[in-house]
Amino acid sequence: MGSLPFSINEVLSGEKRSIAKAITFVENEEKGYLEFLNEIYKKRKNGYRIGITGPPGAGKSTITSKLAILYKDFGFRVGIIAVDPTSPFTGGALLGDRVRMSAIELDPNIFIRSMASRGSLGGLSKSTREVSDVLDAAGFEIILLETVGVGQSELDIVRAADTTIVTLVPESGDVIQAMKAGLMEIADIFLINKSDRPGSEQAVMSIQTILGLRDHDETTWIPKIIKTIATDGKGVENIISAVSEHKNKMEKEGSLQKRRIDREKERIEELVNQNLLNNFWDEKKKNILNSNLENLIENKITPYELLNRLVNEK
Amino acid sequence: MGSLPFSINEVLSGEKRSIAKAITFVENEEKGYLEFLNEIYKKRKNGYRIGITGPPGAGKSTITSKLAILYKDFGFRVGIIAVDPTSPFTGGALLGDRVRMSAIELDPNIFIRSMASRGSLGGLSKSTREVSDVLDAAGFEIILLETVGVGQSELDIVRAADTTIVTLVPESGDVIQAMKAGLMEIADIFLINKSDRPGSEQAVMSIQTILGLRDHDETTWIPKIIKTIATDGKGVENIISAVSEHKNKMEKEGSLQKRRIDREKERIEELVNQNLLNNFWDEKKKNILNSNLENLIENKITPYELLNRLVNEK
Repeated sequence: MGSLPFSINEVLSGEKRSIAKAITFVENEEKGYLEFLNEIYKKRKNGYRIGITGPPGAGKSTITSKLAILYKDFGFRVGIIAVDPTSPFTGGALLGDRVRMSAIELDPNIFIRSMASRGSLGGLSKSTREVSDVLDAAGFEIILLETVGVGQSELDIVRAADTTIVTLVPESGDVIQAMKAGLMEIADIFLINKSDRPGSEQAVMSIQTILGLRDHDETTWIPKIIKTIATDGKGVENIISAVSEHKNKMEKEGSLQKRRIDREKERIEELVNQNLLNNFWDEKKKNILNSNLENLIENKITPYELLNRLVNEK
Repeated sequence: MGSLPFSINEVLSGEKRSIAKAITFVENEEKGYLEFLNEIYKKRKNGYRIGITGPPGAGKSTITSKLAILYKDFGFRVGIIAVDPTSPFTGGALLGDRVRMSAIELDPNIFIRSMASRGSLGGLSKSTREVSDVLDAAGFEIILLETVGVGQSELDIVRAADTTIVTLVPESGDVIQAMKAGLMEIADIFLINKSDRPGSEQAVMSIQTILGLRDHDETTWIPKIIKTIATDGKGVENIISAVSEHKNKMEKEGSLQKRRIDREKERIEELVNQNLLNNFWDEKKKNILNSNLENLIENKITPYELLNRLVNEK
C-alpha cells in the first residue's frame, strides 16, 4: 500500500483526527482507498451497528445523542454516522440538528461524523457501510447510524445495520405514513417518541395490530415498541435493553450471521457494478453519447439504437 | 420484430386494452420489449409530461384526478401514471388512494395506470419514462405522473417530467420538510393544497422567501405558488394556466429542449448500465459470489479481494 495522508496505526488505535482524515479519504475515493479499506476490513472488531431512522421531526438526532451518552456511560466507545440528505440539485447539505450534537463531540469516547448522501446508485449505503468498517476497526464497539432522510436512505440504513430502530411520534397518521413508506418492515424496534403527547397509547396499539397480522413462530423476532421522551432521556435505557435482546435472539437463531452475509453480498455487488461502469464509460463512450443527444430529441436515432452502438463500440 | 401479445396499431390508435397489455409487457421486460420500445419511441407525438409530487397526505391523488378531468374538458386526452411505493421487503404495493380514481378511469379520454416502484438502480424512473413514451405514442397529449412516495421517487419524477408540481399543505413545518427533502429545487409550480386551513398564507410567504434567495435573471422561471382546495376543485384551473405559462417560457428560452436532452441522456446511461450488469452477472459469477459469502464474514477473504477475482474471471 502506498503512502496515506494519515497513520493507519493511529486510526486503529482510535485517534480521532486520523479517523476523520481516513473517512474523508474514503468518502472522496482518493487513490489507494480500496487498498486502505481492504486493510481495515481485516481489522474489524465485531462492532455492533444500530440504525436509527424515521420521518422528519421524530427526534432522531436527540435519540441518537442520548443513546450515545448512555452507551458511553456503560463503558462503550461509540461512533455516530449521521447521514444528511443532500439535494442532488444544489449539492449542499442541510445541517441544523447536527449542530446540537457538538457538545458530546468533545467526549473522547464518542466520535461523530456527518455525511452527505451523494446521488443514487448505492452511493449512500456504500459509504455508510465502509465508514462503519473504519469505525469498527478503530475500536468503536457501538456504531450508531442515523439518517435524517426518508425514502431510499432508510433502506440503506437497514442494509448497513445489525439492529434497526424506527422512531415515530404519536400524532395520528404517523403510523400510517410509516407503513406507506415501508418503515414497518424494516423496524426491529419501534420508538414512540414525544410520548407525553396525546395519542401515544393509540400509536402503540396501531403498531401492535399491524405486527400481529404477520406470520411468526418462536424463531421470529417480534419488534419491541418503546415509549420515549428523548429530550428528558425517558425510556432511552429501555432502547439499550431491547437492542441487547434483539442481538441475543439473532445470535441464538443464527440470523445475525445471515443479516451480515446479506450485507456483504450487497457490498460486493455494488463494488463490482461500480467497477464495471467506471471501466465502461471512457472518454470515447461519453463522446458518442453526448454527440447523439440532439439526434435523440429530433428522432434521428432511438435510445435503443444508441445502446447497441455504445455496447458494440470497442 | 417478433409477434407481440397485443396489436401495436391498436396501441398507437389509443385502444385502452392494448395499451394496458403493452405497458405490462414493458414492465415485465418480456422478450422483444426493447424492440417494441424502439418502435414506440419513433411514434412519440410530443405529449406534455407533468409530474405531481409532494409529501404523503398533501392530496396529490385528488389534484391529479381533478387536473385530468379539467384537461379532458378542454379537449385533451389524458394519461395518468401513478407510482405506488412498494416495500422492497414485501414486494406488495400499498393501494388506497388509487381506488378513488376508478370513477374517472371509465372515461374514454382518460387512461390510468398504477405502477409499483421496483427496487433501486433506476428501476422506477426507467419504467415511468418508458410508459410515458407508450402513452405519448398512443396519442395522450397530457401525461400526468403522480408519485405517492417521498425521497428518491421525486427525483425520478422530475427526470421524467417537463413540468414538476410540488404539492404541500399549510401545516407549519411542511415547507421546511419539503426543503429538507430537496423538493424546493425540483418544483416548477408549488401548490398549497387544503388552503382553507390556517397557515396557508404563511406557507406561501415562506416559499416566496426561499425562492427570493435564489439568483435569477429574466431567463429564469420563477416557480408559481398556487393555493388550491382540491376536494372542491378550487384553484385547479390556475394550475393549468401555470403549466402553460411554464411550457411557453421554457420553449422561448430553449430550456424545454435542454430538459428533454438531459432526460434522454439519463435514459441511455441507465439502459447501457443495466445491459452491462445483466451481461456480467452470469451463473458462474453468481456462484463465485455466493460461495464466498461465509468466507467474507469469517475474514478469510475481503470484499476487495473478491472484487478482483470476479472482475478478472473470464
